[in-house]
Amino acid sequence: MFKLNRSSDVSSARLGTVQTPHGDLATPFFMPIATKGAVKTLSTFDIERLGSPVLLSNTYHLYLRPGTEVVARFGGLHRFMSWDGALLTDSGGYQVFSLAKTRKITEDGATFASHIDGSQHLLTPESSVGIQQVIGSDIVMVLDECTPPDATDDYLKASVDRTTRWARRSKEAFDTGRGTSNNPGAQLFGIVQGGTDDALRVVHATELVGIGFDGYAIGGLSVGEPFEDACRVVSALDTALPADAPRYFMGGAKPHEIVEYVRRGIDMFDCVLPTRNARHGQLYRFVHDDVSRPDFYETVQITNERFKDDTRPLAKAGDDPVALELSRYSYAYLRHLFTIEEVLGQRLATLMNVRFYLRLMERIRASIADGRL
Amino acid sequence: MFKLNRSSDVSSARLGTVQTPHGDLATPFFMPIATKGAVKTLSTFDIERLGSPVLLSNTYHLYLRPGTEVVARFGGLHRFMSWDGALLTDSGGYQVFSLAKTRKITEDGATFASHIDGSQHLLTPESSVGIQQVIGSDIVMVLDECTPPDATDDYLKASVDRTTRWARRSKEAFDTGRGTSNNPGAQLFGIVQGGTDDALRVVHATELVGIGFDGYAIGGLSVGEPFEDACRVVSALDTALPADAPRYFMGGAKPHEIVEYVRRGIDMFDCVLPTRNARHGQLYRFVHDDVSRPDFYETVQITNERFKDDTRPLAKAGDDPVALELSRYSYAYLRHLFTIEEVLGQRLATLMNVRFYLRLMERIRASIADGRL
Repeated sequence: MFKLNRSSDVSSARLGTVQTPHGDLATPFFMPIATKGAVKTLSTFDIERLGSPVLLSNTYHLYLRPGTEVVARFGGLHRFMSWDGALLTDSGGYQVFSLAKTRKITEDGATFASHIDGSQHLLTPESSVGIQQVIGSDIVMVLDECTPPDATDDYLKASVDRTTRWARRSKEAFDTGRGTSNNPGAQLFGIVQGGTDDALRVVHATELVGIGFDGYAIGGLSVGEPFEDACRVVSALDTALPADAPRYFMGGAKPHEIVEYVRRGIDMFDCVLPTRNARHGQLYRFVHDDVSRPDFYETVQITNERFKDDTRPLAKAGDDPVALELSRYSYAYLRHLFTIEEVLGQRLATLMNVRFYLRLMERIRASIADGRL
Repeated sequence: MFKLNRSSDVSSARLGTVQTPHGDLATPFFMPIATKGAVKTLSTFDIERLGSPVLLSNTYHLYLRPGTEVVARFGGLHRFMSWDGALLTDSGGYQVFSLAKTRKITEDGATFASHIDGSQHLLTPESSVGIQQVIGSDIVMVLDECTPPDATDDYLKASVDRTTRWARRSKEAFDTGRGTSNNPGAQLFGIVQGGTDDALRVVHATELVGIGFDGYAIGGLSVGEPFEDACRVVSALDTALPADAPRYFMGGAKPHEIVEYVRRGIDMFDCVLPTRNARHGQLYRFVHDDVSRPDFYETVQITNERFKDDTRPLAKAGDDPVALELSRYSYAYLRHLFTIEEVLGQRLATLMNVRFYLRLMERIRASIADGRL
């Protein structure tokens, strides 16, 4: 399922391939977020034009709307959203902790009240895997508890132990359900928790590796802790995690942070920043081609007065169809669209920012290949 | 500028061509509305894929935002919004009466307070034409007063007389400004007012024809009057307006109304319904190919429960690229997008409805050609 093609001589960066029933994914890669079955403002036709081979979606959201039955009616999310590329689904664990109105954790699972209508639901390791097998994800994530940054040491330890037991149950459910799943070729990833406690992180990783997963995610970071702490945890896990399995940093990060995590051995990323910031008019732009430089990019606010009559195009007309479309429109036009609150502006900005993140990953892979990273 | 290619034997319907510096427009045609320089949720790349050769934009809105200076900086709206097709701009008269916070009409023009920030502005026949010449519209509209449905006979008469004087001033300004305009090949349309008073309408049309315009619009309808009254006015104007100039019904209409106006000699239409209704989840669908039947279409509300697991595609995969894109997505997926309030849903619905109106016009032209209409 994972081929390690090259390890860097100057860092822990790696080049590899995650093989899925819906295509091969060259690592390190970034997954645009289609939380509820759509990348906000974009269609899957747009994603194809952008050239992303993979999307991330979310069990919690899809379970609530449109509901598992509707997804089942289509034989899975791929057909429901018309997407032939790979899909990774988060287990819903993070959303139960970040979105649900109320929640209660027991050994069985997480009981929560829907953020939409307050209705009560129980998410267990087994039901989360079951929903993801109806969704037909190519990469299924185990249910975990995402501990808050201010958790006590005792709570953290008890939570990590429970997450290990949940991971074991997830794997059993995954294997049992494979035959009737909408994607028998799917793979299952474990999620390492443990806050910013390096030792606990390594213990947890070792336990998960003992159970055996197709890949390993690092959860519970990018939740407010200092960037240095996250880097330290990732470095500590670099040796604890097997070299022949992909590593996925969940829920982060800014462009320069991605480069740092890649240096520490991470292969997979997702992040709401490019899409969310786009909708608020914040755009990412390359300043230098060399992404190993700390100052390789900038962000600009399109609503700024200085763009009022900026006739420069939003992209250079290149080979890819999205650049060709963006090259038709100026910064001044995009600013106008934001000024009149026209959603076409959010859409063009989203195309720009997702394209930036995808090109960032291309440049990272090229930099690893030529020995700079 | 206008070639009348065929007149129907069974009605006053006509087939013709409006020639503009940005392409020939086969009549009868429909203009999607890009009020503020964008068809809501769509880019001009989308409009090209939809196959519309013409868009409508608006002087009042563009004058306020982004402002004439910004449009001038781009050499006109075509380049600002990246649109190589034809553009018609409304004069701003209607918006002064429908949107502005306060307004005062004098012989000079209309003083109004911006609906955005309350700032005071004066729009005159000369300034409206001047702005449209900066915009570089292919079809410029004269400034008129759109009288309310409850206007008294005396007010109506006085208003129409003033609109005639404004039309004369507009033509003089148009001819004077042509040389320095951003579109020297533009044409100027007069606007017939007169409420639902047939006799006054005919008098006004005759006066405008005396001044001489490239085309004639019928304004002040679709403002709340009964459909029968609008039909009667249009019929009365059929003989009053010259056969060798295009006739434009402003601000209407529903699909079956368009067919009726075409039967009465109308060549050009615009309407917010397909785009506005799309954003509220109301979709137009053909029930019969024959648009001369009164029951040739239906509207459906996509948020309706019955679409919850409707796997049928939003369009048959056809030759045109938009149908190909729409054919990938189901009614159930579109309903889901509206349920989660995802703007991609508004966008797909807008593509569907604009495509419906454009196909309606195609079918109308085919029906005139084969003698059914």
